[in-house]
Amino acid sequence: MAGVLVSLASAAQAGDPLASWNDGPAKQAILGFVRSAIAEGSPEFIPPAERIATFDQDGTLWVEQPMYAQVMYSLERVPAVVKAKPELASVEPFKTVLSGDREAIAKLTMPDLEKILAATLTGMSVEAFQGEVERWIGTARDARWKRPYTELTYLPMQEVLAYLRTHGFKTYIVTGGGQDFVRVYSERVYGIPPEQVVGSAGETAFGYDGSGRPTLTKEPKLLLNDDKAGKPEGIHLMIGRRPHAAFGNSSGDREMLEYTGAGGGARLMMLVHHDDAQREYAYGVGSRIGAFPDALMAEAKKDGWIVISMKNDWKRIFAFEP
Amino acid sequence: MAGVLVSLASAAQAGDPLASWNDGPAKQAILGFVRSAIAEGSPEFIPPAERIATFDQDGTLWVEQPMYAQVMYSLERVPAVVKAKPELASVEPFKTVLSGDREAIAKLTMPDLEKILAATLTGMSVEAFQGEVERWIGTARDARWKRPYTELTYLPMQEVLAYLRTHGFKTYIVTGGGQDFVRVYSERVYGIPPEQVVGSAGETAFGYDGSGRPTLTKEPKLLLNDDKAGKPEGIHLMIGRRPHAAFGNSSGDREMLEYTGAGGGARLMMLVHHDDAQREYAYGVGSRIGAFPDALMAEAKKDGWIVISMKNDWKRIFAFEP
Repeated sequence: MAGVLVSLASAAQAGDPLASWNDGPAKQAILGFVRSAIAEGSPEFIPPAERIATFDQDGTLWVEQPMYAQVMYSLERVPAVVKAKPELASVEPFKTVLSGDREAIAKLTMPDLEKILAATLTGMSVEAFQGEVERWIGTARDARWKRPYTELTYLPMQEVLAYLRTHGFKTYIVTGGGQDFVRVYSERVYGIPPEQVVGSAGETAFGYDGSGRPTLTKEPKLLLNDDKAGKPEGIHLMIGRRPHAAFGNSSGDREMLEYTGAGGGARLMMLVHHDDAQREYAYGVGSRIGAFPDALMAEAKKDGWIVISMKNDWKRIFAFEP
Repeated sequence: MAGVLVSLASAAQAGDPLASWNDGPAKQAILGFVRSAIAEGSPEFIPPAERIATFDQDGTLWVEQPMYAQVMYSLERVPAVVKAKPELASVEPFKTVLSGDREAIAKLTMPDLEKILAATLTGMSVEAFQGEVERWIGTARDARWKRPYTELTYLPMQEVLAYLRTHGFKTYIVTGGGQDFVRVYSERVYGIPPEQVVGSAGETAFGYDGSGRPTLTKEPKLLLNDDKAGKPEGIHLMIGRRPHAAFGNSSGDREMLEYTGAGGGARLMMLVHHDDAQREYAYGVGSRIGAFPDALMAEAKKDGWIVISMKNDWKRIFAFEP
């Protein structure tokens, strides 16, 4: 993160708030949107209180391949869970995870994964969970770059976050990932405080521990599935305003962009397209993670959404690049 | 509201941010809390990002007797609902509401009220609902003071909101009332933006209208019952941080105050006690609205919560008082 901050600071000094962007329609769309949003008297003007911008996380703000960081967390938590409940060691899908057989793990079904998520993300107090995620995120390394996941954020998107905030926008994460998970590091990594993270959320149960101290326990019951139609629904629940700008990278963000596009004043809808196999990954059409089918590209064209080509629009992808 | 703003401005000029408070333990507790919260280096110091204060609305920020404003709204919406669905005119509880018989209406059961709430608060787009509430809140008058409900806010509590914000606190409403209802006027009345209103919330359903425009429709399914244990649960869901100050006035706020009290740093838990039959109302023990049983008073004493006597602690209750 120090790297990101230094880069942002020197970019701002150099006078270009989007220094990691190549000039082109994507960069111009962002600059033009902000110009319109702050033009008092113009029909495009957005009153400061209504300057809301929402960002998907996985694949939009940081790397999501080959597996979501939160799923990695859950898989790596399995040994601790089995240590506490040894009877799980011989039960699937825990047995497969413990085997360490990468191919078998990659083939786990959704119901299997849900069992693992429930066992590793619920059943503890919210504070205990926060502590576990903090420890993990501080030490875990991604397999390709051998760096903390928190360094795998896209510098060009960090610039967009900072640029919008400079012009009075409140930036939110709106993620299909777990709200409680992302909130642990969102402030440090993106400058986005926990209360501006909307994500998939389970119920909590208020109660008292053995010494009568009030506690909130994470329950295995989904309250908000913050993906696809759940994104505008979650935005209404948690923010209560229609965003003026929304950024995504897959079919899971379609409804959020549609909802964002359906209001008055300046509007900006953008999709990150992962087309850079060399510097990051190239995927999308039909991918299990970050699906970007042709129909989404067609809708983007029809509705004036801007598709960001990672390959062509981004001069630099990560702050740690030379 | 203009009246409140003028009063707040002149109080600030006069140097007393809590000018409508009589000197006493309640006023001193508020001043002392803020002094501790901003004392850098002290163990009581609260880092700016963690300065969260939560306020119940009905009975804490504005009058809740003889009936919640939102219930008045629902009752007054019944004729419009019946106009759209004439078959309801002969069906209970709508028939009783249409009769205008105040005694019969006051005797409606909870299941009856729930039918009325469902019929008047759901089934429309979120924008249509906002428009209806805006129109109503602009014209409705309360029966005792013959004033808009939005003028029935407590000036001393408005001063607390402003005083805390001056010292970097983010102020939230945490209400058992409808989140979508309160969000319509919270910014104008309390200076609290919609995204800082946590309340009881129903599901919305994302879809498309006849012309393909994306819509969110309010559904008759409760997602968050933001009362009692639901208050700390709602705070975790919507804010994700434990408040350092919490204000309530009834049993419905007990768990929120317990949760607020269970953390480190400066803490302030306060309960408004309605003991002023002359200037407002005197109620509490066993009241259907705003119950303040002896057990709550005992818990307040035991846990160091400050009970605000409306009669003794508040010099002035409303901004419109001479």
